[in-house]
Amino acid sequence: MVEGPARDSSAFAETGRPSATGPDVMKQYDLCVIGSGPAGQRAAIQAAKLGKRVCVVEKRHAIGGVAVNTGTIPSKALREAILDVGDRSVACPTMDDFAAVRKTLFANLKRSCSRVIGNEIETIEDHFANNNIDVAHGTGSFSDPKTIRIQTENDESFIKADYTLISVGTYPAQPNGVQFDGRTILSSDDIQEMTAAPHSMIVVGGGVIGTEYASMLQALGVKVTLIEGRQRLLDFVDSEIIEAFQYHVRQNGMTLRLGEKVTKIEVIDAVAGARTTDGTMAEAHLESGKTLRADTLLYCIGRQGATHTLCLENAGLEADKRGRIEVNENFQTATPHIYAAGDVIGFPALASTSYEQGRLAACHMFEQSCESISKLLPYGIYAVPEISMVGWTEGQLTAEGIPYESGIASYKEISRGHLLGAEFGMLKMLIHQESHTVLGVHAIGTGATELIHIGQAAIAFQATVEYFVNAVFNYPTLAECYKVAAMNGLNKLRGV
Amino acid sequence: MVEGPARDSSAFAETGRPSATGPDVMKQYDLCVIGSGPAGQRAAIQAAKLGKRVCVVEKRHAIGGVAVNTGTIPSKALREAILDVGDRSVACPTMDDFAAVRKTLFANLKRSCSRVIGNEIETIEDHFANNNIDVAHGTGSFSDPKTIRIQTENDESFIKADYTLISVGTYPAQPNGVQFDGRTILSSDDIQEMTAAPHSMIVVGGGVIGTEYASMLQALGVKVTLIEGRQRLLDFVDSEIIEAFQYHVRQNGMTLRLGEKVTKIEVIDAVAGARTTDGTMAEAHLESGKTLRADTLLYCIGRQGATHTLCLENAGLEADKRGRIEVNENFQTATPHIYAAGDVIGFPALASTSYEQGRLAACHMFEQSCESISKLLPYGIYAVPEISMVGWTEGQLTAEGIPYESGIASYKEISRGHLLGAEFGMLKMLIHQESHTVLGVHAIGTGATELIHIGQAAIAFQATVEYFVNAVFNYPTLAECYKVAAMNGLNKLRGV
Repeated sequence: MVEGPARDSSAFAETGRPSATGPDVMKQYDLCVIGSGPAGQRAAIQAAKLGKRVCVVEKRHAIGGVAVNTGTIPSKALREAILDVGDRSVACPTMDDFAAVRKTLFANLKRSCSRVIGNEIETIEDHFANNNIDVAHGTGSFSDPKTIRIQTENDESFIKADYTLISVGTYPAQPNGVQFDGRTILSSDDIQEMTAAPHSMIVVGGGVIGTEYASMLQALGVKVTLIEGRQRLLDFVDSEIIEAFQYHVRQNGMTLRLGEKVTKIEVIDAVAGARTTDGTMAEAHLESGKTLRADTLLYCIGRQGATHTLCLENAGLEADKRGRIEVNENFQTATPHIYAAGDVIGFPALASTSYEQGRLAACHMFEQSCESISKLLPYGIYAVPEISMVGWTEGQLTAEGIPYESGIASYKEISRGHLLGAEFGMLKMLIHQESHTVLGVHAIGTGATELIHIGQAAIAFQATVEYFVNAVFNYPTLAECYKVAAMNGLNKLRGV
Repeated sequence: MVEGPARDSSAFAETGRPSATGPDVMKQYDLCVIGSGPAGQRAAIQAAKLGKRVCVVEKRHAIGGVAVNTGTIPSKALREAILDVGDRSVACPTMDDFAAVRKTLFANLKRSCSRVIGNEIETIEDHFANNNIDVAHGTGSFSDPKTIRIQTENDESFIKADYTLISVGTYPAQPNGVQFDGRTILSSDDIQEMTAAPHSMIVVGGGVIGTEYASMLQALGVKVTLIEGRQRLLDFVDSEIIEAFQYHVRQNGMTLRLGEKVTKIEVIDAVAGARTTDGTMAEAHLESGKTLRADTLLYCIGRQGATHTLCLENAGLEADKRGRIEVNENFQTATPHIYAAGDVIGFPALASTSYEQGRLAACHMFEQSCESISKLLPYGIYAVPEISMVGWTEGQLTAEGIPYESGIASYKEISRGHLLGAEFGMLKMLIHQESHTVLGVHAIGTGATELIHIGQAAIAFQATVEYFVNAVFNYPTLAECYKVAAMNGLNKLRGV
C-alpha cells in the first residue's frame, strides 16, 4: 500500500484548481498539514503565501478543528448567551421571565452557535480557496516520513509532501474508571449537547477548560463545586488575579475544593429530594475521604493528543503517554522535516498561540525570517469574570530578581466600571523600578481579554509608565484603568 | 464690596483641614478653579500635586460639572440601558415583555443613573479631600483680576488667587423663537427628565450631542428625524466612517435631513391619530419649505459658554457671542494669569480632552514641564453604533500630500464579531506608504471607543503596520481587527 498509486480520490475537496497530475501520479506538495484547526490553518496560509503548494488533511466533515467545532467558539457562544441571561435577570420584569429565558437558553444556543460556526467555517474555506490550498477529507497517517495516507470510509489515497505539520489537536482524556455517558458524567465535548441547565454540577479539574465552564454554569445559576488537585486554580496566572477570581466565584456561591484529588467517580441512583431528571446522580470520592454528589459531573482533567491514528512510527516519531509530540523551539519534531504545533504539543493550548505556532513553523520550514514574539503572547481565559495577561508575572520577576512595582486600578474607580455595573474588575501594571518600563499587565473583569492588547503594545515598544500617565483616554472607557494603574504605580515608586 | 473682609463662609465645604486664616484675613490661594467639571478637576489635582493651595468654586449643589450631572455620564447611562433593552428584544420570550421593559426603562434609568452619579461625585470628593483641595459652593465671579467673589443665596465671600482657571462649561443655547417647555420642545438637559419614550422625535443638530441622542432613541424604537445644516453628520470624523454610520442608521429607520435649515419651531395641537400624551406636537419648518411633525423635538444646536455670571470685565476679559473664551496654546486668556479650559473654550468639548486641557493649563501656570500629546487625542462618540478615532483622517493626509494606504477589517471577518452579533462594525488603519507607520485608526461598532487605544499606543510609538501583522491577539476578540486591517493594508501596499 505504501507508495501505492494515487487516485483522484473523493477525499479531495474541489478548490476550483485543475489538477496538475494525472490519475497515476501521486500528488506532490511542499507542505501537508494534518488537522485544520488554528495551527494548521495559519501554517497552510503562510506557506501558500510563500508560493508553496499546500494540502490540508482533515478527518472531520467540517474544517476548523476543535476551536471552531466543539471548543473555543461553542464555549464562547455559551458564555455570551449566559452573560445575556445574567444581565436580564437584573432587569427583567419578573423572575418568571428569567426562568423562561434560562430554560430556552440551551435551545437558542444551538441555533446561534450553528450560525457562528457556519460563518467561521465559511471564512476559513474562503481563505483556503483564495490561497489555492487543497483540502482532503479523511484520516491522515504516515506511510513513510514523506508520504501521507488519507483514509476515508470507502477509499484511500496518498500524497507526497516535503514537509508535514502535525496539528491534529486533542480530545478529552478518558481515564480508566470514569464512565462518560453524556448525561450524568460529561466531558467538555458533551456540554454543547446539553438541552437544559442542571441543578448542580461537580467540575473536576481547575485548568482553563474546567475554570471556564465552572464559572459560566455558576453564572447561569447552577450550583457548582470545582475540584482541583493544586492549591489554586490556573497556576500560570498571576496569583493576585487568581485570588480575586477565587474570592469572587466563592462570593457568588461556588464551592472550591483545592488540593483535593478525586479517587473514584460513579453514577448512583438519585437520593431522595434530588432535582434530577433521569433518576441518577454523579458521586465523586476524594482522597481526603469526602464524598460529593450532584446532578452531573464534568470531567476536565487533561486532554489527549489525537495522534493515535497517525502511524507515527512510520515517520520515526512517537507520542508521549498523553498523545503529545515533542518539538524544539522551531516546532520541529525528532524528524526534522516534520513539524508539530497547536494543542498537540501541549501548553498553553490556546487558539491564539496555536495560530502563531503554525505561522512560525511554516516560516521556519521555508526559511522565511519571521520574528518570534513569544514574550508578547497574551493569555485570555474566558471565565466569568474573564481574565487576561501579557508579559511577566510578579512570580517570574521575583524569581529573576528584577525589581518592580505594581500599579493597580479597580474598575470601581472608573466611570465606565460604574456604568457597566462591573465594579469587581481590576487591572494591574507591573513596572520596572529603575527604568519605569512596563513589564506586564494582568486584568480580571469585563473586557479584560480586549483591554490587555493596549498593554501588549506598550510592552512591545518598551513604553514606560509615563506614557499611560500622559495619555488621554476616551471617557468613559475601561481603558482608563491604564491611567489610574500608572498613577498608582508611579506614586508607589515615589513613595507617596 | 470688592476686597471686602473674608468670612468663614458657609460657602466653604469642610475638607478636614484646619483653616490657616482667621476670620478677618482673605483666604489666599495659588489657584482658584471656577467650575468642577473635568477640566477644573484635573487642573486642581495637578496643581495640588505640585504643592499648590487650590480652591474649587462650584455653583451647583453637586460637584462634577455637566459631565457628571447632566451630560456625559447620564447620557451614557441612558445608552447602556437602551443597549440592554435592545439585546433583550432579540431574546425575550415575548414582545409583551419587551414592551414592558421599554416602558420601565426611563424609571429604572433614574435609579441606576443616580447611583452612577453618586459614585462619580464621591470619587471626585475623595480626590479633592486627599489632595487638600478646598471646595467653595457658590457662584464665582471676578471682583478684580486676582480676587474671586463667591456668592451664595444668602451670603458672599472673597478669595485671592495668583492664578485662576475658568472651567465653567456650557449650557444648551436657547435661540430666540424656540420655546423650550421640557415636554414637547426639549434641550439635551431635558432628556434625563423624560418619563417615557416618545413615539417620534425630531432632532435638530447633527453634532456629537444630537447624533448620540438621535441614534440612542432610535435604538429604543423612537421614530427619529435628524436635521443637520451641513451635508453630513460630525464633520470632524472620517468620511468613510460617517458614510457607514449614516447608512446604518438609515437602514434602521432613521430619517436624515442633511443640508437643511430649520427656520421655525412651534408647538401645535396634536393632529388626528397622533400618539401623543398631552395633546400637543412639535412642528419644524425648514428653509426648503418642508414641514415636519413629531411628538417631541430635541434641539441640539450649539451650547453657550456659562460665562455670563463671571463679571469677566473685572478681569479684563470678554466672551464671544456664544459665551466662549479665547485662549492661546497654553490655555491662557488675554489676561495671562487667568486660564480657561474645557467646553468653555469650544471644540472638541469632550470630557477626555477637557481633563487633558486642565492638566496642561495647571502645568503651564506652575512652570512644570509637561508633554502635550494633542496629536494622540482619541475621539469617542457614544452613538449607536459607537464611533472612535485617533490620529490623522484620510482628508487631512490628502490635504497635506502625505501618501498613505488604508487597511480595513470588518467585524464580520472576526469571530468575536459573529459571537456578539455585531457584524456591522469596521476598523480602518491608515498606513504611510513608504515608512509603513500607522498614521490613524478609525472605528465604528461595538467597543470602538475601547479598541481605539491600541492604535493610539501604536501611533505614540511610531509602530509600523508590521507590528500588527506579527502580533498575537487573544482569540476571539475584536482586537483581531487590527491584524486583519494590517494584513489588508499590507496586501494593498504590495499590490496583491
